[in-house]
Amino acid sequence: MLTVREATAAVEWYAVNLGAREVARAASPTGQLVVELEVGGHAIAIVDENPSALNLSPTALGGTSVRLSLVVADPDSLAERLLRAGAREVFPVADQPYGMRQGRVEDPFGHHWLIGRRITRG
Amino acid sequence: MLTVREATAAVEWYAVNLGAREVARAASPTGQLVVELEVGGHAIAIVDENPSALNLSPTALGGTSVRLSLVVADPDSLAERLLRAGAREVFPVADQPYGMRQGRVEDPFGHHWLIGRRITRG
Repeated sequence: MLTVREATAAVEWYAVNLGAREVARAASPTGQLVVELEVGGHAIAIVDENPSALNLSPTALGGTSVRLSLVVADPDSLAERLLRAGAREVFPVADQPYGMRQGRVEDPFGHHWLIGRRITRG
Repeated sequence: MLTVREATAAVEWYAVNLGAREVARAASPTGQLVVELEVGGHAIAIVDENPSALNLSPTALGGTSVRLSLVVADPDSLAERLLRAGAREVFPVADQPYGMRQGRVEDPFGHHWLIGRRITRG
């Protein structure tokens, strides 16, 4: 579950740019919007922040302790698309010594995504 | 990928208390320990913090923007076990209006876990 400052905007951004599919939408017991998404086969929920319940956005904390890894066919194109849509580059997509072609971006809501594919060796 | 202040201790704690299975262990290109785990069928990596690469622990940030959800047969027992092992209760395991029996704990490294099962309706 990813806490954000503006769940409605985040869900829209993830749908348009990451191909997220909305599975369910509800209010939490304390009234925040909770939207369940499917992103690349993973179940991810987006929730509006609520500091009194310790649900703090990266905007509030000034960073995040979690990176989400997406494995896709063409990481270069996806990273470019995310940057054009307002994400910030943490490191560019490149061949990495750990056997992946991978980059990292921070989305406009402060969450961090590794975008990569495994490198096929000849 | 979960950033922590002490990856070695965190990996041990997750193995003992969450049944995490170590899949691989390596150093990142910048020298931090990266340990890939399998926890309840999910692939999770634990990484030592490195502020210069924006990899900050919840300890450094003073919180987290992500909750990880584990669905288990007996959430009451697992939550009790985690609390005995040094986790802190955010809210106790109880029947929730969204159709789960669920609680939430913060582990000793600052990451947040929802521990629950779906409620079977009669």
